[in-house]
Order: sequence, then structure tokens, then C-alpha cells
Amino acid sequence: MTPGGAGVAQRHLDPMDPATGSPAADVLPDYLRAQATEFLRALRAHREAGSNGGAPARSRPAAGTGAAGGRAPGTGDHGGEDTADAVLALRRSARRISGTLHTFRPLLDAAWSEHIRPELAWLSGTLAREHAYAARLERLVAALNRLSGAAAFPTQPRGTAQSAGDATAKGSLTVGAAKAGALLDRQLTLARTRAHSAALQALGSSRFHAVADSVAVLASEVPLAPAAAGAELRPLADAAHERLCDAVAALPLVTAGLPYNAEALVHGLSPDPAPHPQDAPWHQVRLLLRLYRYSREVLHGRDTLDDVRLLAAGEALNRHRDASEAAAAAASAARTPRIAPATAYALGVLHADQRHEVEAARFAFQQCWQKEAVSTA
Amino acid sequence: MTPGGAGVAQRHLDPMDPATGSPAADVLPDYLRAQATEFLRALRAHREAGSNGGAPARSRPAAGTGAAGGRAPGTGDHGGEDTADAVLALRRSARRISGTLHTFRPLLDAAWSEHIRPELAWLSGTLAREHAYAARLERLVAALNRLSGAAAFPTQPRGTAQSAGDATAKGSLTVGAAKAGALLDRQLTLARTRAHSAALQALGSSRFHAVADSVAVLASEVPLAPAAAGAELRPLADAAHERLCDAVAALPLVTAGLPYNAEALVHGLSPDPAPHPQDAPWHQVRLLLRLYRYSREVLHGRDTLDDVRLLAAGEALNRHRDASEAAAAAASAARTPRIAPATAYALGVLHADQRHEVEAARFAFQQCWQKEAVSTA
Repeated sequence: MTPGGAGVAQRHLDPMDPATGSPAADVLPDYLRAQATEFLRALRAHREAGSNGGAPARSRPAAGTGAAGGRAPGTGDHGGEDTADAVLALRRSARRISGTLHTFRPLLDAAWSEHIRPELAWLSGTLAREHAYAARLERLVAALNRLSGAAAFPTQPRGTAQSAGDATAKGSLTVGAAKAGALLDRQLTLARTRAHSAALQALGSSRFHAVADSVAVLASEVPLAPAAAGAELRPLADAAHERLCDAVAALPLVTAGLPYNAEALVHGLSPDPAPHPQDAPWHQVRLLLRLYRYSREVLHGRDTLDDVRLLAAGEALNRHRDASEAAAAAASAARTPRIAPATAYALGVLHADQRHEVEAARFAFQQCWQKEAVSTA
Repeated sequence: MTPGGAGVAQRHLDPMDPATGSPAADVLPDYLRAQATEFLRALRAHREAGSNGGAPARSRPAAGTGAAGGRAPGTGDHGGEDTADAVLALRRSARRISGTLHTFRPLLDAAWSEHIRPELAWLSGTLAREHAYAARLERLVAALNRLSGAAAFPTQPRGTAQSAGDATAKGSLTVGAAKAGALLDRQLTLARTRAHSAALQALGSSRFHAVADSVAVLASEVPLAPAAAGAELRPLADAAHERLCDAVAALPLVTAGLPYNAEALVHGLSPDPAPHPQDAPWHQVRLLLRLYRYSREVLHGRDTLDDVRLLAAGEALNRHRDASEAAAAAASAARTPRIAPATAYALGVLHADQRHEVEAARFAFQQCWQKEAVSTA
């Protein structure tokens, strides 16, 4: 992991200083320049890792082999790990630049920021997918082990997930659980391999080079709007906070705060194969919370007490998103033709387990948010 | 429902009076006589309901037809409902007599009570099974509807459970959920029909007539031990309380008090098809709680504030037992040969759902018990 925003915090004001009066002309360009610099550094790290013999395109298994025990592409050796870290750092700064352009839109050159924002969103979306599939498989295999009473398995570091094949070798899984694990391994490894290729292609594309050029410009000169001179950031950060609070107010938080409300599994067997519509408002809050968190980074630097609470709330929403997508992957695997009943049964248990994780994440968010609401009231 | 212990409460001391000093020679025989009278009244009601044209042996569907939409034997008409109520009342007083003989053993004629207790346990066990299968099917079908997003279904009164066939007709279930419902309906209706026959056979057996004769003796003359003269009941009730508290202390209540601890579903996919061993200590507490509750009925009559709390704790443990057995029934149905993968998937979701009900019931018990511990400290 790169240290990310730590340097930003040091260059900014004391975290206890609400920085209400900081003119946008200083703080906003400072933050954007710092994030652009991080982006360029990560890009350089990615290229160096690739040329050091750890290029994921060469070390990964061929697409479609779907080998049980296959590793995440790009994490097979030291160079691969560096590549993965560099990709994380790229996504991290791309998200921050894009979010900041959104929240502080009126202070930035409109034409320029309208152009670069969707490009950054495309980039971070494309780069996120490979990691998401790897994490989803890891989550599902861990759940299968837990559900088989194999809780004593040591948790593997990310990128070296216990594969379904290994678990079977330990004799701790039923046939159904082992087959379900192998099926998920096959499907998600294939998806991950494709996402890896797409990410490599994106990083070599002229579209990406145009984004990198724009960010390089940003690192030296932030295109501000005329309105930015003497303007204050606080009202725009407050507006981001308000959008977040409005979205949270629309969530069923009273229900979420009652443990075991059994809400998340309603529609668990519904004929509609689409993702749970009840999850969407929570995903939306997750995005708004992140935007608000970035706006606080711009104003305060990082790691104030409130930010720690916001981070916990955000982590609950990440868990919500991950469990929701893992549950959908289990349900989707169960629709594979010609699977054995025992496999389907294990996938059903797994689906329900992940939907309960969804419910647990909502409960955790509700608890965080209550504290948050008290502390910022 | 017969009013049961209400008459007992009236004849006893004021519920606020702890009755510490009541000599066993009065209170204990009074209670046992009252319960024996209830037993004989229920037996008479059962015979009358049977001769009024509502005899379940004639109205129930033939064993093995396993018709979707089949009703609980003996609940098909008014006479059948009366029969079911009479059986409930029989079980209710049999449990109370048996429990009281156990808790206050030193005060009763040893040879007599050692003889009648297992007979009463046999009777209430045999009579309980039919209702248990009906309730299990009702619980599982309700869960299938809930999981299919058909939560708006009106809850049916007991004995007229929404059948899987009806639910399918409403088009609200996936093929898998509908097939799972039909499979469970078939299996549990067959088990219920067999339990009904066994109960009828038991009620016509000479073994039962011997029990009824013993209870008739009890209604007029309770065989006390010589030690009963002037002895106090409270120490024996306290010992029952102590046994309960010891068993509760051995439960993992700290874990149970953390919502979404994911404990109940551990071993959900384990190769061992036996009932969850982690449930046994909770089932044991359920029995000890009931014994303690009956001992309080002997001492105080019913419906003091503490009894209401004990009742709530007991209901949580009943829910725990019901969900545990429903989860096992879903898992067992999934081992039926040649079922479709979609059926197996739905049964997997259902199993996990009921295991989460188990976890929810433990949480509810933990919350009740905390209050209980504070109030009786």
C-alpha cells in the first residue's frame, strides 16, 4: 500500500482547525495537485513493476483453465504484488480527484472538469473489477469453510485466497460444499482473468494516455473557475454532507437497528433474478459517504475523530456491497445447468449466509451512524 | 384452550406473597390435585369430541396420500378442533404433574412417583408429535413465502396452514420454492399422519388406561412421603432455580448477545448430518426453565411479573427448538434422492434461514435473561 493521503494531511492545517476560512484558491488546488502527484507516482510504480519481470500478463494462468488453486493474476510473485499495489494507488487517487471535482464543481473550470470526470470514473471502474472478483471468490470460499465448521482455517492474506481445491484436500467440506467451491472458483477466476485483460488493455489505450496527460497538467496547474477567487469550501462540503444525510434519512434505519429483522433475505427466493432492489439505496449512501469523506480530506486533512467514525460507517457499507455481490454470485452459480442437487443446496446456504451478512452490515452501519449523528449534532 | 392453571392461581395465595412458609402438606397436594383434575377433564373432553362425529381417525386423509393442501389430522372440522384442544390440555397437565413430581421428589411417595413419571413423559411425548410436525410444516411454508417476497400473505390460524399448493397457485414462488414446499408438505404430512395414528393408538392402549387410573387416584389423594409433613417447598424450588442458573451459565451468552455472530450456521454445511450439537445445551435450558416455572406455579400461582419474564425467555427457547428442528427438516428433505437442483437450492436457503432464526432466538433469550437476572438479583 502506498501511504496515500498522509502527506496531504501534513501539508494541511491542524486537523482540529475546522479551516472554515481557508480560501479555495489555496486548499483546493493543493489537494488536487497532491492527488495528481500520487496518481503519477502510482503510474510510474506500475510501469516499473511491469518491466521488472512481474508483468501479470506473463505470469497469470491462461484464461479459461479456471484451475482450483489458481492465484489472482498479478499476485503470483513480488513484481505482481507491486503491480496490484500500484493499481490500488491509481484507483485511490483517481477516485479522490473525481470526487473532489464533483463536490467542488462550481470552483473549477466547468468544461475541463466535465470532460475529465467521466474519464476518471471509467478508469477506476475498469481497474476495480479484477480485485473485486478476487475478493468475492475469497469471501465465498471463506464462508464455505466457515459453514463447514472449518473455522480454524487461518485467514489467508489477500491475493492468496484458500482455494476450494485446497479446502477439499483437508477433508473438511461436504461433497456439495466442495463442488460449490470449485464451481465458484471456475466462474469467478474466469471473470477475474477477463477483468485483468481488460485492465491491461485499458492501461495501454490512447484513452488512458489522454487521462494521464490531463492528470499531469493537474499536478502543476489546477484550472479554477473565476468564482474560486476568495470563495469558501465549507458551503460546498456542507452541501455534500446534506446530500448524504438526506439519503441516509431515506434508509430503513429503524428496521436495520433491530437485530435479526430478516429483511435482507426477503426476496431470497423471489423469481426475479435481478440484484436485490432493496440494496440500491444503501449502495447510493456508500457513494455519497465517500464523496463527503473526500470533501473532509480537502478541508481538514485526515484522521480526525469524526473521520474515524465515517471510515467505520463506510467500511460497513463496503461490507454491505461485497456481501450483496457475493450473494448474487452464489445465486447465479446455482443457475448453472446440470449441477448436482448437493451443489445447489450448498449454494443456497451460501446465498442466505451472504444475505445475512448484508443484514449484519446494515445493522453495523446503523450503529455507526447513530454515534455519528450524536457527535456532529 | 382450556383455562388450565387459572383456577389454581385463584385457590392459591396472593401472587405477591412469596408463600415461603406454606407447608408442603397443603400447597403441593392442592396443585397436584388441580392438575390431575384438569387432566381428567381434558380426557373427558377428548372422548366427547371423538364421539361427536369429529373423530380424527375418520376425518383425516389416508396415510401416504401426502396431499398438498391436506389439513392437520383432527383439525378438519369443529369436532377436530375440540380434539386438538383436548390433546393440548392433556399434554399440559401431564407435563405439569410430571415436572412437579420431579422437582418436589423428596416430599412424595418415592415408589409411586418413580413409577408414574416415565409414564407421563411417554404420554406427553407421544401426544406432542402430531402437533410438532404440523407446526414445523407451517413454519417452513411461511418461511418459503417470506423468502419469496410473499410477505403480504395473511398468517393463517394454527391448523389451517397455508399449504405449498395454495402458495404456488398465487404464482409468487419460484419453481424451486414451490417444489421445496411440496416436498416438505409430502414428508411432514406423512410424518404427521403417522404421529396421529400413534397418538390414537396410545390413547386406546392399556398403558394409557393405567396412567389415567393413576391420575384419577392423584385427583383425590396425593401420596406424600413421611418427610412432607411440615416441610417447606421453597428449598426445592430454589434448587430447581439453581439447576437452571447453572445450565444458563454454561451457555455462550456473551456470543449470543452480539447480534449477527454467525454462530448458528457454523456446521451448516458440515458433513455430519446429525442435529447441531451446539443446540443441545439450549434445549436442556428450555426443559430446566419449564421445571422452574412449574415450581413457581406451585408456590405462587401464576402471572406474577417475574413469571411473565420467564414466559418470554421460555418462548425464545421454544422458538429456538422449533427453528432448530425446522432447519433439520429442510436439510433432511434436501437429501431426498433425485430432487431438482432448484429444489435443493431453495431448501439450502430455507435451512440457512431457519438456522438464523435459531441465532435470533438465542439473542432474544439472552436479552430476556439479562433482565431476569437483574430483577431477581
